[in-house]
Amino acid sequence: MGRGNVASLTPDRIVRLDDDAVVVLDQRRLPEDVVELRCASSAAVAEAIRTLAVRGAPAIGVAAAYGLALAVARGEDPDIAYETLAASRPTAVNLRWALDEMRADPTPERARRIHEDEVERCKQMSAHATVLFEPSSKVLTHCNAGGLATGGYGTAVGAIRAAWEGGLVEHVWVDETRPLLQGARLTAWELEELGIPQTVIVDSAAASLMALGKVDCIVTGADRIAANGDSANKIGTYSLAVLARHHAIPFYVVAPTSTLDPTTADGSGIPIVERSGDEITSRFPAHNPAFDVTPAELIAAIVTEQGVHRPPYLASLPRP
Amino acid sequence: MGRGNVASLTPDRIVRLDDDAVVVLDQRRLPEDVVELRCASSAAVAEAIRTLAVRGAPAIGVAAAYGLALAVARGEDPDIAYETLAASRPTAVNLRWALDEMRADPTPERARRIHEDEVERCKQMSAHATVLFEPSSKVLTHCNAGGLATGGYGTAVGAIRAAWEGGLVEHVWVDETRPLLQGARLTAWELEELGIPQTVIVDSAAASLMALGKVDCIVTGADRIAANGDSANKIGTYSLAVLARHHAIPFYVVAPTSTLDPTTADGSGIPIVERSGDEITSRFPAHNPAFDVTPAELIAAIVTEQGVHRPPYLASLPRP
Repeated sequence: MGRGNVASLTPDRIVRLDDDAVVVLDQRRLPEDVVELRCASSAAVAEAIRTLAVRGAPAIGVAAAYGLALAVARGEDPDIAYETLAASRPTAVNLRWALDEMRADPTPERARRIHEDEVERCKQMSAHATVLFEPSSKVLTHCNAGGLATGGYGTAVGAIRAAWEGGLVEHVWVDETRPLLQGARLTAWELEELGIPQTVIVDSAAASLMALGKVDCIVTGADRIAANGDSANKIGTYSLAVLARHHAIPFYVVAPTSTLDPTTADGSGIPIVERSGDEITSRFPAHNPAFDVTPAELIAAIVTEQGVHRPPYLASLPRP
Repeated sequence: MGRGNVASLTPDRIVRLDDDAVVVLDQRRLPEDVVELRCASSAAVAEAIRTLAVRGAPAIGVAAAYGLALAVARGEDPDIAYETLAASRPTAVNLRWALDEMRADPTPERARRIHEDEVERCKQMSAHATVLFEPSSKVLTHCNAGGLATGGYGTAVGAIRAAWEGGLVEHVWVDETRPLLQGARLTAWELEELGIPQTVIVDSAAASLMALGKVDCIVTGADRIAANGDSANKIGTYSLAVLARHHAIPFYVVAPTSTLDPTTADGSGIPIVERSGDEITSRFPAHNPAFDVTPAELIAAIVTEQGVHRPPYLASLPRP
């Protein structure tokens, strides 16, 4: 593990458009194997999103944009390609945003600009978020809102990275994030590449770390943010926000404005994907919601590329 | 899965003393395989406890009692056997209690009486606990405080079983209980045997179920209870208690008086075993506390074989 691998985390290694395929770093195989997956059609891109080979709301949007450009380049029906890609992850509002952008200009150049903009936005929001960190912060994060999830720099992990580069982060606690272990597999891998001190925990151990004073703030990404600030994110995020409130620890969300959904008034309007119970156990009945909704009242700040937004979010969140 | 397997959950199938060995149902192999482990020395019994082949504070106490009887019967040094068994799980106060009982009378008969008393106590506390359940209760439990954990009927699962037999339980949510999955493997297996409707969830999904009104009460066991009611139990229990408080859901502990430790004033005096991080991930650094401590103020009632005890526990808990 050297800095050589950091270079491999450049945006075009995570997701890019080749002449004949959308190529993604297969996140199902990390951290054991660093393997690319070539998706030669929009259906293959949708399948990569559905099966979590590429995951994270911004990275999905970028992959879908490349997918639509690929579809047009190879003569697929653009409407069918649009619908196929849009249906691959119903909760990801910026997936639909990226596809709508592409509809007007379904070129490789437009898709690459969406990708570059996404990376740039992550760097901007990460820079804004550094004001939230005290020196020597012990930070806890959930799932993977990193470079892998965003096609580049990261949102929550980007914020941690920027704060760490500014000398503000002492340690990162990484929730393993059951059932698919995006924390223990992906975030831990990214933090190792970046050389940031970290420890993986089971999700249910976060509370006792908070009680022991070992967590100064919690930072997560978001899959979709309603007009009032209610935020849908990986299952377990809401649990952390409640625990943070009990322990008087600030809970922050870092996400691009493409995640904002002003047409949804509050969290009750955000559909929650139910995934197969087999991801938990194939031996007994299981309930496996992929996301939960954190009420705005538990979120100390939402950070976008436009700045740090404080409650009440209905007034403070930008209109995309 | 028929009632035939329920019969196999009789106390002597879970742990018993044969002429030449302490025999335990190997809980590491469930639910896939129902396999007995024969422990032919006190050291083998201690190893079975340490490696979680037998687990749960009361079952550990019973196994250790049989282990000391076996040690004396086969001519081992009783002091060394006592120390070896006592060191196998430092947090389990009733392990030491059972060993102290055996010291005065290290016979198979005494050990079997400890076992019978444990089962009887579980039935008593489970009967007491039924007053805590409303009709059609949706109950959430963590880890395995069942027949497997107690050498017979169960504490938290015993209470659920008694309430279900009384027509008070509609559904049971089973926390899978990372990292060792005692919920998804053992509690789910027991509930299936008992025919009680259940669904397994990842630990971090409990909060959103509470927010949706799908949890009426939470019931767990305890590994050790301090004089003031602070209770040590499987990692994740404290998290549930905080979440229960936030959602105004009662959180109950069901445990025998042998779990009470009046010599420890409060939870800060309970040592927390740190297990190998490899149980979480062998690829990155990991922190793996086996237990956490739930403050008494978050516990609506503690149920023992002597009855239902309410706060303040310093006054209400029995002195063993």
